[in-house]
Amino acid sequence: MSARFSRLATVGILGGGQLGRMLAMAAARLGIHVVILDPDPECPAAEVAADQIVAAYDDEAALDLLASRCDVVTYEFENVPVVAARRLAERIPVRPGARALEVAQDRIVEKSFLNDIGIRTAGFRAVDSAADAIAALGAFSGGGILKTRRFGYDGKGQAVVKAGSDAGEAFAAIGAKSAVFEEFIAFDCEISIVAARSVDGEMLAYEPARNLHENGILRRSTVPAGVAPSTVEAARQMAFSILAELDYVGVIGVEFFVARDGTLLVNEIAPRVHNSGHWTEAACFVSQFELHMRAVLGLPLGGTERHSDCVMENLIGDEIAQVETLAGEAGVVVHDYGKAEIRAGRKMGHFTRLTGRSSPASG
Amino acid sequence: MSARFSRLATVGILGGGQLGRMLAMAAARLGIHVVILDPDPECPAAEVAADQIVAAYDDEAALDLLASRCDVVTYEFENVPVVAARRLAERIPVRPGARALEVAQDRIVEKSFLNDIGIRTAGFRAVDSAADAIAALGAFSGGGILKTRRFGYDGKGQAVVKAGSDAGEAFAAIGAKSAVFEEFIAFDCEISIVAARSVDGEMLAYEPARNLHENGILRRSTVPAGVAPSTVEAARQMAFSILAELDYVGVIGVEFFVARDGTLLVNEIAPRVHNSGHWTEAACFVSQFELHMRAVLGLPLGGTERHSDCVMENLIGDEIAQVETLAGEAGVVVHDYGKAEIRAGRKMGHFTRLTGRSSPASG
Repeated sequence: MSARFSRLATVGILGGGQLGRMLAMAAARLGIHVVILDPDPECPAAEVAADQIVAAYDDEAALDLLASRCDVVTYEFENVPVVAARRLAERIPVRPGARALEVAQDRIVEKSFLNDIGIRTAGFRAVDSAADAIAALGAFSGGGILKTRRFGYDGKGQAVVKAGSDAGEAFAAIGAKSAVFEEFIAFDCEISIVAARSVDGEMLAYEPARNLHENGILRRSTVPAGVAPSTVEAARQMAFSILAELDYVGVIGVEFFVARDGTLLVNEIAPRVHNSGHWTEAACFVSQFELHMRAVLGLPLGGTERHSDCVMENLIGDEIAQVETLAGEAGVVVHDYGKAEIRAGRKMGHFTRLTGRSSPASG
Repeated sequence: MSARFSRLATVGILGGGQLGRMLAMAAARLGIHVVILDPDPECPAAEVAADQIVAAYDDEAALDLLASRCDVVTYEFENVPVVAARRLAERIPVRPGARALEVAQDRIVEKSFLNDIGIRTAGFRAVDSAADAIAALGAFSGGGILKTRRFGYDGKGQAVVKAGSDAGEAFAAIGAKSAVFEEFIAFDCEISIVAARSVDGEMLAYEPARNLHENGILRRSTVPAGVAPSTVEAARQMAFSILAELDYVGVIGVEFFVARDGTLLVNEIAPRVHNSGHWTEAACFVSQFELHMRAVLGLPLGGTERHSDCVMENLIGDEIAQVETLAGEAGVVVHDYGKAEIRAGRKMGHFTRLTGRSSPASG
């Protein structure tokens, strides 16, 4: 596929969870065919996509089949094997590229990348043993969080290490895996920004959301975030730096800590559509899912304008039963991912409550 | 299926065109499974639905299979055979019911029904021969339009009969089929209203759209319609009368002529989501497609509130090539139905241009 848009193109998506499902639905609105690659034949995205290849992400024959059937490939999660992305990229465009995966998959590579381009993060140290963990706590005496370098999500693979506690025990608690010790940040709030870069290098960002996490899982995103305009602009510029530096094509999610003095530290980046951007489906003319599809297809991005203020909230586990009641509330947009199995901590859906009309000037 | 909502329910849709496709996409947002019944395996709705039964609408085995796999059945077009709806209704709820189909399928039954419940239409006469046509023109000396009683859409099966012309020739031109002669109405504009009724009898309506037709096909719908508030209210009340009288469940489209004196005549009713309601997908919190799904599933309707003023325009035939350019315009929401074959007069997609933010009080 060239940089140019081709009507009725086929997009491959690695991963068929709720993000893949929402990407597939956005693609359908653009008349685009979608092929999902996911090992689970019952994955949420399969039934709204034209087709699915049921295979592991490192199945070379399946990857080659996907490449033969698609014009461009993207992904819905950051733990796609980099070798799979590279293999696909020999045949067809993979957007975003493998470099974004490499950076996002390893917390130390990620933080080093950010620091190298002048973006602050929490102080950190690599930890590969109990002794390393103890030494890190010695260096960051205010305490911190020990996180596995790879494959963490929704708070999994993390342990809080308080000042004076046994850091070696925390290392055991996360499975004695290669990890990073991050110093505690005394932050005022957490915000995130969802931004995109087109094939032509055009960059746009939605307004930041203020995020509340509970038990390591996103609970709620509020827009506007209630931070200073200078903070919004700083977050946008950091997101744009990251996009440009990675020669990125598609949507990215960037999570920030807003320190008490108003400065921003990047917590992490996600090379994909982001849970804290689900509100865009309800409050913007172009959702993050469509924005991502536009970018990877070579369509103009259009815009990230927002027509309403809003609060997005996840429906986790058996909270999904609230959909019926929420559907009866005026100004609430509901979304059920159609997952049959309800498990504690599983993201089952979300809803966005529109809390007011934004002025036409709002971005 | 009871009147109550059941999570992860399966909805059958008779017809897999663009309306079925958009209904299936709205269902997906609610986590609902969709099975399409359509004789065309390449129909637009198939690839966004969980499954398709490829069969004719009067295939009894296929209808029984559909009934066995679904909790409720609906349809995307008014020419579903009434016997098919009745057969399905013996097994599972069919929403809207067969009565709505009977009324909408025959222009004379439709107008008689409307007149019987106190709603004005153009004057009309049944025409089953050239002599009938000539007699009708005699009765309506200002001229009129001869329309086949059944199976007309997008201006097909219609002939204009001017005063002093040969009405017999017009009858031949429409294939000498059982027809209705409708007198010309000196109307100021055409508007339509999309309304819905829930299982519990709750009724809601979107704001009316002002419609412009070209060559019998809808070109453009503008909201607000620019008619007097009393006209809006009259249109709503007529739509609600029709819904209540038919004991209807789901979304209905009602087309009106606004006479020069401001009075309303109903042109026709469509027992389904309606082309003139496509703007709701871009300018409302709940689209007509989701509103219909909510109604047939027994979910609360939620609301028909609109956040923006807008103009929806169809992309007909090779106009679909405009999608790429339109995607680059801020405040334009594009929709491509994914149809591979481009034909003159074929509806290929639409776009909605948001023309301003509506005040929170707007319905």
